[in-house]
Amino acid sequence: MSHPFFKNNGPLLLSEIIEYLNLKNYKLKSDRKIEDIKDLFTANNSDITFFHSKKYREVAKNTKASFCITTDSLKNDLPKNCNSLIVDNVLISVSKLTSKFYPGSINDNFDETAISISETKFKDKAKFGKNVLVGENVSLGSNCVIGHNSIIEKNVNIGNNCSIGSNTIIRNTIIKDNVRILDGCVIGKHGFGFFPVKNQNLRYPHIGIVIIEDNCEIGCSATIDRGSMSNTVIGKNTYLDNQIHIAHNVRIGENSIIAGQVGIAGSSVIGSNVKIGGQAGISGHLKIGNNVEIGGGSGVIKSIPDNTKVMGYPAKKIKEFLRDNK
Amino acid sequence: MSHPFFKNNGPLLLSEIIEYLNLKNYKLKSDRKIEDIKDLFTANNSDITFFHSKKYREVAKNTKASFCITTDSLKNDLPKNCNSLIVDNVLISVSKLTSKFYPGSINDNFDETAISISETKFKDKAKFGKNVLVGENVSLGSNCVIGHNSIIEKNVNIGNNCSIGSNTIIRNTIIKDNVRILDGCVIGKHGFGFFPVKNQNLRYPHIGIVIIEDNCEIGCSATIDRGSMSNTVIGKNTYLDNQIHIAHNVRIGENSIIAGQVGIAGSSVIGSNVKIGGQAGISGHLKIGNNVEIGGGSGVIKSIPDNTKVMGYPAKKIKEFLRDNK
Amino acid sequence: MSHPFFKNNGPLLLSEIIEYLNLKNYKLKSDRKIEDIKDLFTANNSDITFFHSKKYREVAKNTKASFCITTDSLKNDLPKNCNSLIVDNVLISVSKLTSKFYPGSINDNFDETAISISETKFKDKAKFGKNVLVGENVSLGSNCVIGHNSIIEKNVNIGNNCSIGSNTIIRNTIIKDNVRILDGCVIGKHGFGFFPVKNQNLRYPHIGIVIIEDNCEIGCSATIDRGSMSNTVIGKNTYLDNQIHIAHNVRIGENSIIAGQVGIAGSSVIGSNVKIGGQAGISGHLKIGNNVEIGGGSGVIKSIPDNTKVMGYPAKKIKEFLRDNK
Repeated sequence: MSHPFFKNNGPLLLSEIIEYLNLKNYKLKSDRKIEDIKDLFTANNSDITFFHSKKYREVAKNTKASFCITTDSLKNDLPKNCNSLIVDNVLISVSKLTSKFYPGSINDNFDETAISISETKFKDKAKFGKNVLVGENVSLGSNCVIGHNSIIEKNVNIGNNCSIGSNTIIRNTIIKDNVRILDGCVIGKHGFGFFPVKNQNLRYPHIGIVIIEDNCEIGCSATIDRGSMSNTVIGKNTYLDNQIHIAHNVRIGENSIIAGQVGIAGSSVIGSNVKIGGQAGISGHLKIGNNVEIGGGSGVIKSIPDNTKVMGYPAKKIKEFLRDNK
Repeated sequence: MSHPFFKNNGPLLLSEIIEYLNLKNYKLKSDRKIEDIKDLFTANNSDITFFHSKKYREVAKNTKASFCITTDSLKNDLPKNCNSLIVDNVLISVSKLTSKFYPGSINDNFDETAISISETKFKDKAKFGKNVLVGENVSLGSNCVIGHNSIIEKNVNIGNNCSIGSNTIIRNTIIKDNVRILDGCVIGKHGFGFFPVKNQNLRYPHIGIVIIEDNCEIGCSATIDRGSMSNTVIGKNTYLDNQIHIAHNVRIGENSIIAGQVGIAGSSVIGSNVKIGGQAGISGHLKIGNNVEIGGGSGVIKSIPDNTKVMGYPAKKIKEFLRDNK
Repeated sequence: MSHPFFKNNGPLLLSEIIEYLNLKNYKLKSDRKIEDIKDLFTANNSDITFFHSKKYREVAKNTKASFCITTDSLKNDLPKNCNSLIVDNVLISVSKLTSKFYPGSINDNFDETAISISETKFKDKAKFGKNVLVGENVSLGSNCVIGHNSIIEKNVNIGNNCSIGSNTIIRNTIIKDNVRILDGCVIGKHGFGFFPVKNQNLRYPHIGIVIIEDNCEIGCSATIDRGSMSNTVIGKNTYLDNQIHIAHNVRIGENSIIAGQVGIAGSSVIGSNVKIGGQAGISGHLKIGNNVEIGGGSGVIKSIPDNTKVMGYPAKKIKEFLRDNK
């Protein structure tokens, strides 16, 4: 499947890739065309892939990719059909190459394609306020309203019966039906992801998007970043209060309720029917189960199993929290 | 007194109400007109009221309302003049019916009535920036300034000598004299109040407003939600720093000082001369006394008596906090 | 050096100053012109200075100022060339007098000088969105982009290759080269500084500015306040995530990484190569060393030496935190 939003700049010639990654020792027999960069599992024989950690060894053994960015110590796990390109830091090289395939994913400057909605095909379809702008590659369902000064930047699909507030900015986002997004939100910008390299930060591309499922409500002044390689997802009927920050690659289940000023760090996965009290924070790369309740102000630094109530910093079972703080 | 902002859609016929609440067993002798929905104390004989908890039993006994939404177990406390309408969940039925009386209180879509201030009677009265919009039912005192791109949505009264920043949105709010509201605020939107019913959230109407008393300052990017049945109030000369969230029904006294990123959850009441340090959070439905000091970062989960200094999460007396953390 | 942004309203006559500060007992031999108000060290003989704490005694002894606002108990430390003006509260008098010299520093109303960028000399220089406004005394380097609805208010210097997002407001700020500021930020407004005097808050003037050094990135919806007497500084190559609040006079070093929703209170100084996790808070007037790591959610209430990892509230060494929370 081609990417819904970011244009693939490929194919790239293998010689270009080798030059771009500064791989001086590689000699080319023929100059292959490489279509795309994909993970070990989804890559096919016209793609390049990457292999950076031995925990992916089993997948690596079966990759269909013809080329793989990897390290000297991992290369022997690759199958015969897959030629290794050895680099010092796999993720940095992947980051550079992904930017080459998807140059539109690295730049989050303002959307120059945005024009007044009254000059677009939506002018008779939606109800909208003053000074509303719409970028390229936007679709809009029936019965939607968009508030004053809001900017639907490029690469946004909005379903039916949605209400977008005023002063809100959205890009690279799929919004399903009956969603309400209130005022002052910024949704779909790249996440806070980069590699510090010699006193310069190398941003890695964010080719993921934001998906907001049916019946969600997003409170005022939320920031929801799009994913890097995967997507940021807000599940059906989940409600977010004001001033919430959802980082890149976070996935939240259905029917969850998240109170004001909560922050969820990158790549954490939150279950369904979860309740999170105001100002709670959840560290990155955690798994919060279904039916979990997290007390206001908690700092969650470990994964939480289903059906658990926690509170505190670090968050622990609420019974322990209350006992320890009598 | 009629509501200052939300139009009462009444009177409704009793038969309409019965049908709307799906009360199949009620047979009508005559079809009464019901003017309004009010609480047990303020309702009169042309109104409908509601009674959902035995702690209101004494008030219930003396209500003047002719009709009352209640439960089977509570109905016998009502006086003879008051006919009970029995439902499964009083608050959900009240929520639905209030939406029927005040349909304008449930929808927080952008204000379609807002037009450029230069097309209004305020064009020679206030000093204002570019792209300022003003909705219906707005009043403005003398000597006010309103910044670029700000939207004074419907139902706003602003006093004398007030300064509204840029990119700020206000609705359903009374602002007294000498108030400064800085950039990027959203004031008067509905709060985070709803009932989860069968994997759908039923929003309850917010017919309260926001009141900001004389001489207050509200920092950049604040969100202050209006009340549900009562009002959200910021007392005289109280100053709020940047990125503060004040939830619905919160009341703050006079001369209080609230530092950056503080969050106050719904229905809590804060006294006068209170100081709250940065990032502190206060749970809902608490009472914080006068002259209280709350340290930065604290998580307050219990009410605090007058003249107390607290710190920590959960917040405790500051002496104990310092002793426990030596 | 004259102030880069705020116009000095001086010279003021000494008689005006005496009247303005309500110093009834002073009789004038001659009416001197006073050029400026400066600190004890930088003032020269045409300036007025102030001396409010005995910890500045050594500097006071050598001041070149001809006049000094001070108290009865401190006046004897001043040299002969310096005439004391005795007041009850030095800082309040200084605040009043600074406002008199720099009236533009006390008022943070919207910038009335801002006009559409397409009417300015920048219209062919920068790439910009719809409805961009630019105030007086703005400079702009080459190759910059400015997003929709953003307001570059008065007193802003922007370097080369900078990207300003949409809905962002900047004033009184120097931005160096290759800086990215994302959407919805408010940068350069006055800080949360005032003296409560008899149930009224007397704001003290903020004559400091914000300086953002080369290669920084400021995430969405940040608020960065300008300094009061000194400047607020973000060092080279430092990256801030979304929803961060940086208070007045804060200085952050180079190559630091600050995650979402962090708040840093007034006048704290953060070193270089510092990492701060999401939602952490740092109290005012602290010194955080170089190479410090602060865990997400921490509340830092004491200074931290170089090369230290801390976590918790109050923050302690991470080893202790983990041991205490096993």
